[in-house]
Amino acid sequence: MEFKIERAKQLKEKPVETKLGFGRHFSDHMLVIDYTEGIGWHDGRIIPYGPIEMDPACMVLHYAQETFEGLKAYRHTDGSIALFRPEINAQRLIKSNERLCMPPVPVDLFLKGIEELVKYEQDWVPKEPRTSLYIRPFCFATESGVGLHPAKKYKFVVILSPVGDYYPEGVNPVKIWVEDEYVRAVKGGTGFAKCGGNYAASIAAQVKAEQNGYTQVLWLDGVHRKYVEEVGTMNVMFLINDTVVTTPLEGSILPGVTRDSIITLLKDWRVTVEERHLSIDELMEAGRTGALKEAFGTGTAAVISPIGELHYKDETVIINDFKTGKLTKKLYDTLTGIQWGRVEDPYHWVKILK
Amino acid sequence: MEFKIERAKQLKEKPVETKLGFGRHFSDHMLVIDYTEGIGWHDGRIIPYGPIEMDPACMVLHYAQETFEGLKAYRHTDGSIALFRPEINAQRLIKSNERLCMPPVPVDLFLKGIEELVKYEQDWVPKEPRTSLYIRPFCFATESGVGLHPAKKYKFVVILSPVGDYYPEGVNPVKIWVEDEYVRAVKGGTGFAKCGGNYAASIAAQVKAEQNGYTQVLWLDGVHRKYVEEVGTMNVMFLINDTVVTTPLEGSILPGVTRDSIITLLKDWRVTVEERHLSIDELMEAGRTGALKEAFGTGTAAVISPIGELHYKDETVIINDFKTGKLTKKLYDTLTGIQWGRVEDPYHWVKILK
Repeated sequence: MEFKIERAKQLKEKPVETKLGFGRHFSDHMLVIDYTEGIGWHDGRIIPYGPIEMDPACMVLHYAQETFEGLKAYRHTDGSIALFRPEINAQRLIKSNERLCMPPVPVDLFLKGIEELVKYEQDWVPKEPRTSLYIRPFCFATESGVGLHPAKKYKFVVILSPVGDYYPEGVNPVKIWVEDEYVRAVKGGTGFAKCGGNYAASIAAQVKAEQNGYTQVLWLDGVHRKYVEEVGTMNVMFLINDTVVTTPLEGSILPGVTRDSIITLLKDWRVTVEERHLSIDELMEAGRTGALKEAFGTGTAAVISPIGELHYKDETVIINDFKTGKLTKKLYDTLTGIQWGRVEDPYHWVKILK
Repeated sequence: MEFKIERAKQLKEKPVETKLGFGRHFSDHMLVIDYTEGIGWHDGRIIPYGPIEMDPACMVLHYAQETFEGLKAYRHTDGSIALFRPEINAQRLIKSNERLCMPPVPVDLFLKGIEELVKYEQDWVPKEPRTSLYIRPFCFATESGVGLHPAKKYKFVVILSPVGDYYPEGVNPVKIWVEDEYVRAVKGGTGFAKCGGNYAASIAAQVKAEQNGYTQVLWLDGVHRKYVEEVGTMNVMFLINDTVVTTPLEGSILPGVTRDSIITLLKDWRVTVEERHLSIDELMEAGRTGALKEAFGTGTAAVISPIGELHYKDETVIINDFKTGKLTKKLYDTLTGIQWGRVEDPYHWVKILK
């Protein structure tokens, strides 16, 4: 598919790169591709960023048939622009769409769309340390009608946002509230899919955590209310003695690109990684005895977010004196080093845009 | 709040009332009210039905912060128009919004909005038997930004659709597939809220049921995969011997207006109603022995939908020779009789628009 291009009449002023925040500024153009049952994906176009006209009965506004992805473009010191494992995002979107009975966006179309849009908007890839261009591909049902069924029309849209740190704390440790009332997902549901409904359901717990003075929540599983699942919108890992423990991919958590990359790094470093169920009781006990050396969330937006404190019921444990741990720091430096082109990439994760 | 009114330049041709289907036609006007944090609900207006302009980063398209309601306006034989217990929908929307950290639409504003819109569009309330005007109020986040937090801006919109029967089968029995792979909701999640994410998650099971020759699914609970929850998007009731058994409201199922009305009718008729956990094993055994006399789904869209067949794993049970049961029929006739003004309404459920 060749994309038609319509250039914006007026370009925006770029935001100050040291004060970007996360997801507040958007670039001048976006990619839009339509889907119609019987025709497939069609009318790909790069057009000025601006409002989309939606029928009030369009199904996404009622039944949330919507999925998304998140990845970043990084500015290397030689001026080139890199993507990080974008094909994994493409494959995950296919899985998400399948769960929601939405048509797959072919991997090639996903990659071509992102690459052409980012190249077209390359002046929007920031240069300051710890900044990047966040890429948000998303898919949603546009068919009108309030009967519930898989829609016959969709849009795939990609928007771009220059970003700094996700958390105001930067890469400093955050305080985590272990949530035992709200549930994020359960096996058989949509936990492994990156779909809007999971995020809508999670907001109440996040607000509750913040009201209690915590940055994010640690989710427990929905069946036993016992096993650790995710932290906020990130996967989560714990260094217990010499072993990194993380939740296995069994349908209720998101298969994170950062999670997978970190497991690869750890295994290469001969650190034992256990993908297994970890109960909150075992975790709190490890916190009490000091066996819990480090803890961190992993995700595209924040990359790695160290956890300095866990609060569960009436108990609080402090991890590594509320300092970023050595392994956490090494992982962050290595992964972001690869992403920003400062560290060798033996895994061929980085894809330089040509 | 007074609503501004902008009349459509051209009115649509009304669809043929005997061929309405469900949710395919929309009236000439809609109600829109905006919400801004710090200001509250403002700028209520009745305007021509038409596209809403949405920023591509608006949060509803990414994180599904969206809720809705469903109720109907009925044409009585004297030409007057009736709503059915609309205050229950208003109260439920408040609960749904609370779960999704969205601002409540005050009950008075909800009722005034619907009443004024329906009166303005009264020619759209159909007159044919078994038709009504389906009212779809919905709320969604309009703030732009891809950081996850409760939005600061929302819209509350009401659209109207003249409808006939929800199922092509009408009030004839449907075949139900008992789903043991996909899960609709779990306690601690959003099962009790009428939010888009629940419906997006349910589509895959519905498609699977249809592929197997069934109209809808019967959901089992997400924890034990054992207890009956809902049928499709309806509550479900079973007449086992002389007792009606239905799922209790414990957070994972929707508190249906029709469910509540039917329980009231049954209790008045001195039929024993048990709101209790019913395992699929007990249900199938009741089907085998013939203790299961009748079964039906209840909801605003279909009102009452008799169940003629249940399929679970490798077993099929037929209920009441695949005929609509006596109690089911009596409930349908009484409830729709009250709604359409043909049967006395001792409960003051019907609200005639003045």
